[in-house]
Amino acid sequence: MDSNSTPDIVVGRLPRYLQALQRMAVEGISSTSSQELGERLGISAAQIRKDLSQFGEFGKQGTGYAVPYLIDQLEVILKIKRFWDIVLIGTGDLGHAIARYQGFANRGFRIAMVFDNDPVKIGTKIDHFIIQDIANLEKLVQEAGIKVAMLTVPAAAAQSVSERLVKAGVKAILSYAPTPLNLPADIHVEYIDPLIQLQHMTYYLG
Amino acid sequence: MDSNSTPDIVVGRLPRYLQALQRMAVEGISSTSSQELGERLGISAAQIRKDLSQFGEFGKQGTGYAVPYLIDQLEVILKIKRFWDIVLIGTGDLGHAIARYQGFANRGFRIAMVFDNDPVKIGTKIDHFIIQDIANLEKLVQEAGIKVAMLTVPAAAAQSVSERLVKAGVKAILSYAPTPLNLPADIHVEYIDPLIQLQHMTYYLG
Repeated sequence: MDSNSTPDIVVGRLPRYLQALQRMAVEGISSTSSQELGERLGISAAQIRKDLSQFGEFGKQGTGYAVPYLIDQLEVILKIKRFWDIVLIGTGDLGHAIARYQGFANRGFRIAMVFDNDPVKIGTKIDHFIIQDIANLEKLVQEAGIKVAMLTVPAAAAQSVSERLVKAGVKAILSYAPTPLNLPADIHVEYIDPLIQLQHMTYYLG
Repeated sequence: MDSNSTPDIVVGRLPRYLQALQRMAVEGISSTSSQELGERLGISAAQIRKDLSQFGEFGKQGTGYAVPYLIDQLEVILKIKRFWDIVLIGTGDLGHAIARYQGFANRGFRIAMVFDNDPVKIGTKIDHFIIQDIANLEKLVQEAGIKVAMLTVPAAAAQSVSERLVKAGVKAILSYAPTPLNLPADIHVEYIDPLIQLQHMTYYLG
């Protein structure tokens, strides 16, 4: 398969399919259909079949998909049959919650390093992580070869910190800072901002 | 303007425009253009002009937009010239971080009530919030007339809790639980799951 030929919007749906399938596995469901998966996700069965067909043949006409097999195949496609180390920058309340979150490991990721710029916090621990001095960011991230970062710094710091991450070799940044980042075109950036999503919904409320 | 006539994908971009404009205001920028806004957001100037034109005339040819005026107008369109009360369900690490987050108020929202089902937590405080017993969820949410909820409960609890919220009159749910929710069509649901966004990015990594 060629990463460049698949529309990004299709790629963006694959993790949602995987999430729903993993939920099915937890519920003890061992086989499913595009119909059933679609009902869970609010996506049409035809769309799911079309999306998956871009990557291969994963089910049989009439018998549907084996849940563990499709999970396995999606993990291969999304390149999460391995652990991706994550560097976390910012150890406020949200950074704390992320550092302590137990849900990364079974979905292909692990927090590897945690940084802050607050002298009071540097050297202290969150769980088993010693909070590192952001002064050493480039050195430590580059040495460890980390490609993925999560940012929970204030908006005013997000641009400069993300530029430093890029210099250190990071290729993908998930930012919780409520501001857009301007980075080179080959850097993947995604944002999480609950306010953006809340405001999207209130548009429709009376 | 008619809420039903504007494509949802356009509506979904408005909070991002607002966020970038608010950031400009913080930086002391008082007027801007579709070009400048687009560069910040990675969206074309033409797209921004087209999106905004669905709601009225906010700028002048050649002189661009007055930042405070456009902020004000977007706040009207998104119905956030008021505070929306939010009910927060689940007080783990993430629920804690959300309850203590100071960024809601200046963007149209405030946490009004916090619930959990853990007898050890019920009655204790997070900041000024007393954690309420989820047994009283329907009663308290309905009495307060709350329409917006944030869910930070485990995946296994998300569906049943969200059904109870809908019964209590909630119309918009932002869920951090890593599972899709099946709710009536008139209920607005958005999801936040960092793993979904991380997996989307790793697809493109080497």
